Amino acid sequence: MNDIDRLIQIMGRLPGLGPRSARRAVLHLLKKREALLHPLIDALGEVAANVKTCTVCGNLDAADPCTICRDASRDGSLICVVADVGDLWALERIATFKGRYHVLGGVLSALDGVGPEQLSIAPLLRRLEGGEVKEVILALGATVDGQTTGHYLSDRLQPLNVAISRLAHGVPVGGELDYLDDGTLIQALKARQKL
Amino acid sequence: MNDIDRLIQIMGRLPGLGPRSARRAVLHLLKKREALLHPLIDALGEVAANVKTCTVCGNLDAADPCTICRDASRDGSLICVVADVGDLWALERIATFKGRYHVLGGVLSALDGVGPEQLSIAPLLRRLEGGEVKEVILALGATVDGQTTGHYLSDRLQPLNVAISRLAHGVPVGGELDYLDDGTLIQALKARQKL
Repeated sequence: MNDIDRLIQIMGRLPGLGPRSARRAVLHLLKKREALLHPLIDALGEVAANVKTCTVCGNLDAADPCTICRDASRDGSLICVVADVGDLWALERIATFKGRYHVLGGVLSALDGVGPEQLSIAPLLRRLEGGEVKEVILALGATVDGQTTGHYLSDRLQPLNVAISRLAHGVPVGGELDYLDDGTLIQALKARQKL
Repeated sequence: MNDIDRLIQIMGRLPGLGPRSARRAVLHLLKKREALLHPLIDALGEVAANVKTCTVCGNLDAADPCTICRDASRDGSLICVVADVGDLWALERIATFKGRYHVLGGVLSALDGVGPEQLSIAPLLRRLEGGEVKEVILALGATVDGQTTGHYLSDRLQPLNVAISRLAHGVPVGGELDYLDDGTLIQALKARQKL
């Protein structure tokens, strides 16, 4: 296999790129060597060399503890539990949450053989032992596995002296009732808010 | 901007990847360092260091002249003219054409300011001077610019003693008449073949 084919094959393993779009991407890189290929190689090298997993919260960052864990202006009494670093990034984009995070590294899944030991649950419990944390927000996906993980965690956290909350379910902003699934509509009706 | 954001920004400039899918790809790379991130860096480095443009035909290859131009088993009397290296790859995949190629590097486009000087047309004419080439196949897209380029080239090649052909237009394999555009149907009818 030649260099180009090997690169196409590796690029095709990225999520969102199939064999055809990987080919197109590689061709584009070869046409824009200075503007794209060399910067991409440099940026990948930097990330490979510098980015590590935060030993406190599981975030990915050049610093350990990560920038969020170090930030003294953040509320250390509030921990938001997410399944994945991508979820942490999503919450950071809305710039509304000012507490700290804890990345589980996945959700419980009987099908995929993910049990509590595979997730960062013991480190979460250790973080709560200090007594600084007053509230834990379970920001998990509204999927079966996400909800199972939420129930499991809320059982484990119950004996500790912390408030436990989860994200609200309901009509997504911009959503039309007509197109909503029944589950969402039921949750939205149950959790209706007084005006 | 931190390392991860810079990488996401660069990845997002690849065709087929937007900001959201670039984020997903970078996260995937960071999770699969050994299996994906390091091999990708190596493969990109190899391609950047080794792959060059063939000075004969314009193909991209580690060798110059490229593997196709060097291959003595290929028919040197037949040249297939394509707009882009991606088109050459597409023709190589069907493994039906056994001649050589010439990559123009684009098509004529008044809108994009691409004139004959921007394309590899003079080198093509020089390749035909030797007299070895007997037929030139214009394998250009059935777009306005592709067809304009084909007409222009056929005018330029007319004085030379070579046969000129173009790809057939017609019903694509698997295509239903009902869904075909009028232009294709007209071409398919005009170029109907006796059984």
